[in-house]
Amino acid sequence: MLSLSVLQERIGYRFQDEKLLRRAVTHRSYAAEHNERLEFLGDSVLNCVIGYALFLRDTHFSEGDLSRVRANLVCEKTLHEVAKRIDISSFLYMGEGELKTGGAERASILADAMEAIFGAVFREAGFEAAQAVILRVYEPILSNLTPETFSKDPKTRLQELLQGAHLPRPEYTILHTMGAAHERSFECECRIEPLGIATSGRATNRRAAEQNAALLALEAVQAKIVHK
Amino acid sequence: MLSLSVLQERIGYRFQDEKLLRRAVTHRSYAAEHNERLEFLGDSVLNCVIGYALFLRDTHFSEGDLSRVRANLVCEKTLHEVAKRIDISSFLYMGEGELKTGGAERASILADAMEAIFGAVFREAGFEAAQAVILRVYEPILSNLTPETFSKDPKTRLQELLQGAHLPRPEYTILHTMGAAHERSFECECRIEPLGIATSGRATNRRAAEQNAALLALEAVQAKIVHK
Repeated sequence: MLSLSVLQERIGYRFQDEKLLRRAVTHRSYAAEHNERLEFLGDSVLNCVIGYALFLRDTHFSEGDLSRVRANLVCEKTLHEVAKRIDISSFLYMGEGELKTGGAERASILADAMEAIFGAVFREAGFEAAQAVILRVYEPILSNLTPETFSKDPKTRLQELLQGAHLPRPEYTILHTMGAAHERSFECECRIEPLGIATSGRATNRRAAEQNAALLALEAVQAKIVHK
Repeated sequence: MLSLSVLQERIGYRFQDEKLLRRAVTHRSYAAEHNERLEFLGDSVLNCVIGYALFLRDTHFSEGDLSRVRANLVCEKTLHEVAKRIDISSFLYMGEGELKTGGAERASILADAMEAIFGAVFREAGFEAAQAVILRVYEPILSNLTPETFSKDPKTRLQELLQGAHLPRPEYTILHTMGAAHERSFECECRIEPLGIATSGRATNRRAAEQNAALLALEAVQAKIVHK
Protein backbone atom coordinates (compact mmCIF):
# COMPACT_ATOMS: atom_id res chain seq x y z
CA MET A 1 0.00 0.00 0.00
CA LEU A 2 1.41 3.38 -1.02
CA SER A 3 1.59 6.31 1.37
CA LEU A 4 -1.21 8.86 1.28
CA SER A 5 1.31 11.61 0.57
CA VAL A 6 1.84 10.08 -2.87
CA LEU A 7 -1.89 10.25 -3.49
CA GLN A 8 -1.93 13.90 -2.43
CA GLU A 9 0.82 14.68 -4.92
CA ARG A 10 -1.13 12.99 -7.68
CA ILE A 11 -4.33 14.92 -7.05
CA GLY A 12 -2.44 18.17 -6.47
CA TYR A 13 -3.87 18.90 -3.04
CA ARG A 14 -2.33 18.48 0.41
CA PHE A 15 -4.78 17.83 3.24
CA GLN A 16 -4.48 19.65 6.55
CA ASP A 17 -6.42 16.78 8.08
CA GLU A 18 -5.07 13.60 6.54
CA LYS A 19 -7.72 11.56 8.37
CA LEU A 20 -10.26 13.02 5.98
CA LEU A 21 -8.36 11.64 2.99
CA ARG A 22 -7.93 8.32 4.73
CA ARG A 23 -11.66 8.16 5.23
CA ALA A 24 -12.19 8.92 1.54
CA VAL A 25 -10.20 5.81 0.58
CA THR A 26 -11.80 3.55 3.19
CA HIS A 27 -14.39 1.14 1.84
CA ARG A 28 -17.31 0.19 4.06
CA SER A 29 -15.98 -3.35 4.31
CA TYR A 30 -12.96 -2.05 6.27
CA ALA A 31 -14.31 0.26 8.98
CA ALA A 32 -17.38 2.07 10.29
CA GLU A 33 -15.65 5.30 9.32
CA HIS A 34 -16.07 4.66 5.60
CA ASN A 35 -16.34 6.85 2.54
CA GLU A 36 -20.01 6.72 1.58
CA ARG A 37 -21.06 10.13 2.88
CA LEU A 38 -18.00 11.77 1.31
CA GLU A 39 -18.87 10.02 -1.94
CA PHE A 40 -22.35 11.57 -1.79
CA LEU A 41 -20.76 14.99 -1.36
CA GLY A 42 -18.13 14.42 -4.04
CA ASP A 43 -20.68 13.26 -6.56
CA SER A 44 -22.55 16.56 -6.33
CA VAL A 45 -19.36 18.67 -6.50
CA LEU A 46 -18.19 16.69 -9.52
CA ASN A 47 -21.48 17.30 -11.31
CA CYS A 48 -21.25 20.99 -10.65
CA VAL A 49 -17.59 21.38 -11.66
CA ILE A 50 -17.92 19.37 -14.88
CA GLY A 51 -21.22 21.05 -15.70
CA TYR A 52 -19.61 24.46 -15.33
CA ALA A 53 -16.55 23.50 -17.39
CA LEU A 54 -18.85 22.38 -20.23
CA PHE A 55 -21.05 25.47 -19.85
CA LEU A 56 -18.03 27.75 -20.32
CA ARG A 57 -16.62 25.76 -23.19
CA ASP A 58 -18.95 26.95 -25.92
CA THR A 59 -22.06 29.07 -25.72
CA HIS A 60 -23.66 27.12 -28.55
CA PHE A 61 -24.15 23.89 -26.67
CA SER A 62 -27.80 23.46 -25.77
CA GLU A 63 -28.95 22.32 -22.38
CA GLY A 64 -29.55 18.88 -23.90
CA ASP A 65 -25.99 18.67 -25.25
CA LEU A 66 -24.57 19.75 -21.89
CA SER A 67 -26.62 17.19 -19.97
CA ARG A 68 -25.71 14.36 -22.31
CA VAL A 69 -22.00 15.06 -22.31
CA ARG A 70 -21.87 15.62 -18.58
CA ALA A 71 -23.65 12.31 -17.97
CA ASN A 72 -20.88 10.65 -19.98
CA LEU A 73 -18.12 12.40 -18.05
CA VAL A 74 -19.39 11.69 -14.55
CA CYS A 75 -20.52 8.10 -15.12
CA GLU A 76 -18.85 5.15 -13.38
CA LYS A 77 -16.96 4.20 -16.52
CA THR A 78 -15.23 7.57 -16.88
CA LEU A 79 -14.61 7.91 -13.14
CA HIS A 80 -13.06 4.46 -13.18
CA GLU A 81 -10.74 5.57 -15.98
CA VAL A 82 -9.71 8.63 -13.95
CA ALA A 83 -9.25 6.50 -10.82
CA LYS A 84 -7.05 4.00 -12.65
CA ARG A 85 -4.83 6.75 -14.02
CA ILE A 86 -3.90 7.84 -10.49
CA ASP A 87 -3.91 4.22 -9.34
CA ILE A 88 -6.44 4.65 -6.54
CA SER A 89 -6.46 0.92 -5.87
CA SER A 90 -2.96 1.17 -4.32
CA PHE A 91 -4.37 3.41 -1.59
CA LEU A 92 -7.63 1.66 -0.75
CA TYR A 93 -8.49 0.29 2.68
CA MET A 94 -10.88 -2.60 2.37
CA GLY A 95 -11.92 -5.69 4.28
CA GLU A 96 -10.23 -9.04 3.67
CA GLY A 97 -13.30 -10.56 2.05
CA GLU A 98 -13.70 -7.68 -0.37
CA LEU A 99 -10.00 -7.79 -1.26
CA LYS A 100 -10.07 -11.53 -1.92
CA THR A 101 -12.96 -11.17 -4.35
CA GLY A 102 -11.13 -8.52 -6.36
CA GLY A 103 -12.71 -5.44 -4.75
CA ALA A 104 -9.62 -3.32 -5.28
CA GLU A 105 -10.12 -3.59 -9.04
CA ARG A 106 -13.90 -3.23 -9.09
CA ALA A 107 -14.95 -0.23 -11.18
CA SER A 108 -17.72 0.85 -8.80
CA ILE A 109 -15.44 0.81 -5.74
CA LEU A 110 -12.70 2.79 -7.49
CA ALA A 111 -15.18 5.29 -8.92
CA ASP A 112 -16.77 5.78 -5.50
CA ALA A 113 -13.39 6.38 -3.85
CA MET A 114 -12.54 8.92 -6.54
CA GLU A 115 -15.75 10.80 -5.80
CA ALA A 116 -15.12 10.57 -2.06
CA ILE A 117 -11.71 12.22 -2.55
CA PHE A 118 -13.37 15.12 -4.36
CA GLY A 119 -15.85 15.33 -1.48
CA ALA A 120 -13.06 15.35 1.09
CA VAL A 121 -11.26 18.24 -0.63
CA PHE A 122 -14.54 20.17 -0.87
CA ARG A 123 -15.25 19.50 2.82
CA GLU A 124 -11.85 20.74 3.94
CA ALA A 125 -11.11 23.59 1.53
CA GLY A 126 -14.27 24.56 -0.34
CA PHE A 127 -15.53 24.59 -3.88
CA GLU A 128 -12.58 26.12 -5.66
CA ALA A 129 -10.06 23.70 -4.18
CA ALA A 130 -12.27 20.77 -5.22
CA GLN A 131 -12.69 22.32 -8.65
CA ALA A 132 -8.90 22.53 -9.09
CA VAL A 133 -8.45 18.86 -8.17
CA ILE A 134 -11.27 17.70 -10.44
CA LEU A 135 -10.08 19.74 -13.43
CA ARG A 136 -6.56 18.41 -12.89
CA VAL A 137 -7.48 14.74 -12.86
CA TYR A 138 -10.04 15.19 -15.65
CA GLU A 139 -7.67 17.20 -17.84
CA PRO A 140 -6.82 14.36 -20.26
CA ILE A 141 -10.53 13.68 -20.75
CA LEU A 142 -11.68 17.28 -21.06
CA SER A 143 -8.93 18.16 -23.51
CA ASN A 144 -9.95 15.25 -25.73
CA LEU A 145 -13.57 16.30 -26.08
CA THR A 146 -14.39 16.87 -29.71
CA PRO A 147 -17.35 18.76 -31.18
CA GLU A 148 -18.78 15.34 -32.08
CA THR A 149 -18.93 14.43 -28.40
CA PHE A 150 -21.52 17.15 -28.03
CA SER A 151 -23.66 16.03 -30.92
CA LYS A 152 -26.11 13.23 -31.13
CA ASP A 153 -24.86 10.37 -33.28
CA PRO A 154 -25.48 10.57 -37.06
CA LYS A 155 -28.20 7.89 -37.10
CA THR A 156 -30.22 9.80 -34.51
CA ARG A 157 -29.71 13.13 -36.26
CA LEU A 158 -30.68 11.65 -39.61
CA GLN A 159 -33.83 10.11 -38.20
CA GLU A 160 -34.84 13.37 -36.53
CA LEU A 161 -34.23 15.32 -39.72
CA LEU A 162 -36.37 12.92 -41.76
CA GLN A 163 -39.10 12.89 -39.14
CA GLY A 164 -39.22 16.70 -39.19
CA ALA A 165 -39.67 16.56 -42.98
CA HIS A 166 -42.41 13.89 -42.66
CA LEU A 167 -40.31 11.33 -44.49
CA PRO A 168 -39.99 7.62 -43.59
CA ARG A 169 -37.03 6.24 -41.62
CA PRO A 170 -33.90 5.28 -43.55
CA GLU A 171 -33.26 1.59 -44.24
CA TYR A 172 -29.94 0.05 -43.27
CA THR A 173 -28.61 -3.12 -44.89
CA ILE A 174 -25.29 -4.92 -44.79
CA LEU A 175 -23.80 -4.97 -48.30
CA HIS A 176 -20.66 -6.98 -47.54
CA THR A 177 -18.81 -8.61 -44.70
CA MET A 178 -15.12 -8.96 -45.45
CA GLY A 179 -12.04 -10.53 -43.90
CA ALA A 180 -11.41 -13.24 -41.32
CA ALA A 181 -13.11 -13.22 -37.91
CA HIS A 182 -10.42 -11.23 -36.11
CA GLU A 183 -10.17 -8.57 -38.81
CA ARG A 184 -13.73 -8.42 -40.02
CA SER A 185 -14.89 -5.37 -41.94
CA PHE A 186 -18.51 -4.41 -42.64
CA GLU A 187 -19.96 -2.34 -45.43
CA CYS A 188 -23.45 -0.98 -44.74
CA GLU A 189 -25.88 0.89 -46.91
CA CYS A 190 -28.21 3.64 -45.77
CA ARG A 191 -31.10 4.14 -48.17
CA ILE A 192 -33.77 6.85 -48.19
CA GLU A 193 -36.02 5.77 -51.04
CA PRO A 194 -38.25 8.89 -51.42
CA LEU A 195 -35.19 11.10 -51.82
CA GLY A 196 -33.30 8.71 -54.09
CA ILE A 197 -30.41 8.66 -51.62
CA ALA A 198 -28.20 5.64 -50.96
CA THR A 199 -24.86 5.91 -49.20
CA SER A 200 -22.49 3.33 -47.83
CA GLY A 201 -20.10 3.25 -44.88
CA ARG A 202 -17.43 0.82 -43.80
CA ALA A 203 -16.07 -0.06 -40.35
CA THR A 204 -14.89 -2.98 -38.24
CA ASN A 205 -18.30 -3.36 -36.63
CA ARG A 206 -21.77 -3.14 -38.00
CA ARG A 207 -22.95 -0.29 -35.82
CA ALA A 208 -20.02 1.96 -36.74
CA ALA A 209 -20.49 1.14 -40.42
CA GLU A 210 -24.14 2.21 -40.17
CA GLN A 211 -23.12 5.44 -38.44
CA ASN A 212 -20.65 6.20 -41.21
CA ALA A 213 -23.29 5.58 -43.86
CA ALA A 214 -25.77 7.72 -41.90
CA LEU A 215 -23.29 10.60 -41.74
CA LEU A 216 -22.96 10.62 -45.53
CA ALA A 217 -26.73 10.33 -45.94
CA LEU A 218 -27.21 13.21 -43.51
CA GLU A 219 -25.05 15.43 -45.68
CA ALA A 220 -26.90 14.32 -48.82
CA VAL A 221 -30.32 15.02 -47.23
CA GLN A 222 -29.21 18.44 -45.99
CA ALA A 223 -27.97 19.34 -49.48
CA LYS A 224 -31.29 18.23 -51.05
CA ILE A 225 -33.44 20.05 -48.52
CA VAL A 226 -31.44 23.28 -48.80
CA HIS A 227 -31.50 23.21 -52.62
CA LYS A 228 -35.18 22.40 -52.97
CA MET B 1 -44.29 43.21 -14.43
CA LEU B 2 -42.14 44.10 -11.41
CA SER B 3 -38.66 45.58 -11.77
CA LEU B 4 -35.69 43.24 -11.58
CA SER B 5 -34.30 45.26 -8.67
CA VAL B 6 -37.18 43.94 -6.54
CA LEU B 7 -36.22 40.40 -7.48
CA GLN B 8 -32.60 41.09 -6.53
CA GLU B 9 -33.70 42.31 -3.12
CA ARG B 10 -35.74 39.14 -2.61
CA ILE B 11 -32.90 36.81 -3.44
CA GLY B 12 -30.37 38.92 -1.53
CA TYR B 13 -27.94 39.38 -4.40
CA ARG B 14 -27.36 42.40 -6.65
CA PHE B 15 -26.06 41.61 -10.15
CA GLN B 16 -23.25 43.61 -11.70
CA ASP B 17 -24.58 42.51 -15.06
CA GLU B 18 -28.35 42.75 -14.85
CA LYS B 19 -28.65 41.25 -18.36
CA LEU B 20 -27.62 37.94 -16.82
CA LEU B 21 -30.57 38.03 -14.43
CA ARG B 22 -32.88 39.09 -17.22
CA ARG B 23 -31.75 36.08 -19.19
CA ALA B 24 -32.44 33.84 -16.20
CA VAL B 25 -36.09 34.93 -16.16
CA THR B 26 -36.54 34.70 -19.94
CA HIS B 27 -38.44 31.66 -21.12
CA ARG B 28 -37.52 30.15 -24.48
CA SER B 29 -40.91 31.24 -25.88
CA TYR B 30 -39.83 34.89 -25.54
CA ALA B 31 -36.35 35.18 -27.04
CA ALA B 32 -33.39 33.26 -28.41
CA GLU B 33 -31.44 34.46 -25.36
CA HIS B 34 -33.39 32.24 -22.98
CA ASN B 35 -32.66 30.62 -19.66
CA GLU B 36 -32.11 26.94 -20.47
CA ARG B 37 -28.32 26.85 -20.21
CA LEU B 38 -28.40 28.82 -16.97
CA GLU B 39 -30.99 26.39 -15.67
CA PHE B 40 -28.59 23.51 -16.41
CA LEU B 41 -25.90 25.30 -14.44
CA GLY B 42 -28.23 26.25 -11.59
CA ASP B 43 -29.53 22.72 -11.23
CA SER B 44 -26.03 21.39 -10.56
CA VAL B 45 -25.17 24.19 -8.11
CA LEU B 46 -28.44 23.63 -6.26
CA ASN B 47 -27.71 19.91 -5.92
CA CYS B 48 -24.29 20.64 -4.52
CA VAL B 49 -25.40 23.35 -2.07
CA ILE B 50 -28.36 21.39 -0.71
CA GLY B 51 -26.30 18.20 -0.58
CA TYR B 52 -23.63 19.95 1.46
CA ALA B 53 -26.17 21.56 3.81
CA LEU B 54 -27.63 18.12 4.52
CA PHE B 55 -24.17 16.55 4.85
CA LEU B 56 -23.24 19.07 7.56
CA ARG B 57 -26.54 18.77 9.36
CA ASP B 58 -25.96 15.48 11.09
CA THR B 59 -23.14 12.99 10.74
CA HIS B 60 -25.54 10.11 11.32
CA PHE B 61 -27.45 10.43 8.08
CA SER B 62 -26.41 7.69 5.70
CA GLU B 63 -25.71 8.27 2.07
CA GLY B 64 -29.15 6.82 1.31
CA ASP B 65 -30.89 9.25 3.69
CA LEU B 66 -28.99 12.17 2.21
CA SER B 67 -29.86 11.21 -1.36
CA ARG B 68 -33.52 10.70 -0.59
CA VAL B 69 -33.96 13.97 1.28
CA ARG B 70 -32.00 15.93 -1.28
CA ALA B 71 -34.12 14.51 -4.09
CA ASN B 72 -37.17 15.84 -2.23
CA LEU B 73 -35.64 19.27 -1.75
CA VAL B 74 -34.49 19.85 -5.31
CA CYS B 75 -37.53 18.39 -7.09
CA GLU B 76 -39.84 20.52 -9.20
CA LYS B 77 -42.51 20.59 -6.49
CA THR B 78 -40.19 22.09 -3.86
CA LEU B 79 -38.56 24.49 -6.32
CA HIS B 80 -42.01 25.63 -7.35
CA GLU B 81 -42.84 26.32 -3.71
CA VAL B 82 -39.65 28.40 -3.37
CA ALA B 83 -40.37 30.21 -6.65
CA LYS B 84 -43.90 31.09 -5.56
CA ARG B 85 -42.69 32.50 -2.27
CA ILE B 86 -40.58 35.10 -4.08
CA ASP B 87 -43.25 35.45 -6.77
CA ILE B 88 -41.03 34.64 -9.73
CA SER B 89 -44.02 34.75 -12.08
CA SER B 90 -44.14 38.56 -11.75
CA PHE B 91 -40.68 38.79 -13.30
CA LEU B 92 -40.95 36.28 -16.14
CA TYR B 93 -40.51 37.15 -19.79
CA MET B 94 -42.48 34.75 -21.94
CA GLY B 95 -44.11 34.61 -25.36
CA GLU B 96 -47.76 35.61 -25.81
CA GLY B 97 -48.87 32.08 -26.58
CA GLU B 98 -47.22 30.68 -23.48
CA LEU B 99 -48.72 33.45 -21.33
CA LYS B 100 -52.23 32.87 -22.65
CA THR B 101 -52.08 29.17 -21.81
CA GLY B 102 -51.09 29.92 -18.21
CA GLY B 103 -47.32 29.49 -18.60
CA ALA B 104 -46.58 32.05 -15.88
CA GLU B 105 -48.19 29.73 -13.32
CA ARG B 106 -46.81 26.44 -14.65
CA ALA B 107 -44.75 24.69 -11.97
CA SER B 108 -42.05 23.52 -14.39
CA ILE B 109 -41.50 27.00 -15.86
CA LEU B 110 -41.26 28.63 -12.43
CA ALA B 111 -38.95 25.91 -11.09
CA ASP B 112 -36.70 26.23 -14.15
CA ALA B 113 -36.47 30.02 -13.76
CA MET B 114 -35.59 29.58 -10.09
CA GLU B 115 -32.73 27.25 -11.05
CA ALA B 116 -31.61 29.63 -13.79
CA ILE B 117 -31.35 32.44 -11.22
CA PHE B 118 -29.07 30.25 -9.07
CA GLY B 119 -27.04 29.54 -12.20
CA ALA B 120 -26.76 33.23 -13.05
CA VAL B 121 -25.46 34.10 -9.57
CA PHE B 122 -22.95 31.24 -9.77
CA ARG B 123 -21.85 32.41 -13.24
CA GLU B 124 -21.26 35.96 -12.10
CA ALA B 125 -19.98 35.59 -8.56
CA GLY B 126 -19.00 31.97 -7.92
CA PHE B 127 -20.05 29.14 -5.68
CA GLU B 128 -20.27 30.91 -2.35
CA ALA B 129 -22.48 33.70 -3.68
CA ALA B 130 -24.83 31.12 -5.20
CA GLN B 131 -24.74 29.15 -1.94
CA ALA B 132 -25.81 32.25 0.02
CA VAL B 133 -28.76 32.89 -2.30
CA ILE B 134 -29.89 29.25 -2.26
CA LEU B 135 -29.66 28.94 1.52
CA ARG B 136 -31.60 32.20 1.88
CA VAL B 137 -34.52 31.20 -0.31
CA TYR B 138 -34.53 27.63 1.02
CA GLU B 139 -34.33 28.72 4.66
CA PRO B 140 -38.03 28.10 5.47
CA ILE B 141 -37.77 24.60 4.03
CA LEU B 142 -34.43 23.66 5.58
CA SER B 143 -35.44 24.90 9.01
CA ASN B 144 -38.58 22.77 8.88
CA LEU B 145 -36.76 19.51 8.20
CA THR B 146 -37.49 17.04 10.96
CA PRO B 147 -35.66 13.81 11.77
CA GLU B 148 -38.64 12.03 10.23
CA THR B 149 -37.91 13.68 6.89
CA PHE B 150 -34.72 11.67 6.84
CA SER B 151 -36.40 8.39 7.52
CA LYS B 152 -38.47 6.30 5.23
CA ASP B 153 -42.17 6.55 6.03
CA PRO B 154 -43.63 4.17 8.66
CA LYS B 155 -45.52 2.00 6.14
CA THR B 156 -42.32 1.37 4.20
CA ARG B 157 -40.29 0.68 7.33
CA LEU B 158 -42.96 -1.68 8.67
CA GLN B 159 -43.11 -3.59 5.43
CA GLU B 160 -39.32 -3.92 5.28
CA LEU B 161 -39.18 -5.11 8.88
CA LEU B 162 -41.86 -7.77 8.25
CA GLN B 163 -40.21 -8.86 5.02
CA GLY B 164 -36.90 -9.29 6.85
CA ALA B 165 -38.67 -11.53 9.39
CA HIS B 166 -40.36 -13.52 6.57
CA LEU B 167 -43.80 -12.37 7.68
CA PRO B 168 -46.68 -11.35 5.37
CA ARG B 169 -47.50 -7.71 4.61
CA PRO B 170 -49.77 -5.85 7.03
CA GLU B 171 -53.40 -5.30 6.08
CA TYR B 172 -54.88 -1.81 6.16
CA THR B 173 -58.61 -1.18 6.46
CA ILE B 174 -60.70 1.93 7.08
CA LEU B 175 -62.59 1.52 10.33
CA HIS B 176 -64.55 4.80 10.29
CA THR B 177 -64.98 7.93 8.24
CA MET B 178 -66.25 10.79 10.36
CA GLY B 179 -67.45 14.37 9.89
CA ALA B 180 -68.78 16.41 6.94
CA ALA B 181 -66.91 16.56 3.61
CA HIS B 182 -64.77 19.59 4.46
CA GLU B 183 -63.73 18.28 7.88
CA ARG B 184 -63.53 14.59 7.18
CA SER B 185 -61.56 12.38 9.55
CA PHE B 186 -60.42 8.83 8.87
CA GLU B 187 -59.66 6.01 11.25
CA CYS B 188 -57.57 3.21 9.78
CA GLU B 189 -56.50 -0.13 11.15
CA CYS B 190 -53.17 -1.83 10.55
CA ARG B 191 -53.36 -5.57 11.22
CA ILE B 192 -50.52 -8.10 11.33
CA GLU B 193 -52.38 -11.36 11.87
CA PRO B 194 -49.46 -13.77 12.63
CA LEU B 195 -48.22 -11.47 15.41
CA GLY B 196 -51.68 -10.73 16.80
CA ILE B 197 -51.08 -7.02 16.31
CA ALA B 198 -53.80 -4.52 15.38
CA THR B 199 -53.33 -0.79 15.76
CA SER B 200 -55.38 2.16 14.59
CA GLY B 201 -54.51 5.68 13.47
CA ARG B 202 -56.58 8.76 12.72
CA ALA B 203 -56.00 11.69 10.35
CA THR B 204 -57.80 13.98 7.91
CA ASN B 205 -56.83 11.81 4.98
CA ARG B 206 -56.65 8.11 4.47
CA ARG B 207 -52.94 7.91 3.67
CA ALA B 208 -51.92 9.81 6.79
CA ALA B 209 -54.25 7.69 8.93
CA GLU B 210 -52.58 4.53 7.58
CA GLN B 211 -49.13 5.99 8.30
CA ASN B 212 -50.16 6.73 11.88
CA ALA B 213 -51.46 3.20 12.33
CA ALA B 214 -48.28 1.81 10.75
CA LEU B 215 -46.10 3.82 13.17
CA LEU B 216 -47.87 2.25 16.17
CA ALA B 217 -47.66 -1.20 14.58
CA LEU B 218 -43.97 -0.68 13.93
CA GLU B 219 -43.38 -0.06 17.63
CA ALA B 220 -45.46 -3.09 18.57
CA VAL B 221 -43.55 -5.34 16.15
CA GLN B 222 -40.20 -4.07 17.35
CA ALA B 223 -41.19 -4.79 20.97
CA LYS B 224 -42.30 -8.35 20.06
CA ILE B 225 -39.22 -9.13 18.03
CA VAL B 226 -36.86 -7.84 20.74
CA HIS B 227 -38.65 -9.79 23.48
CA LYS B 228 -38.89 -13.06 21.62
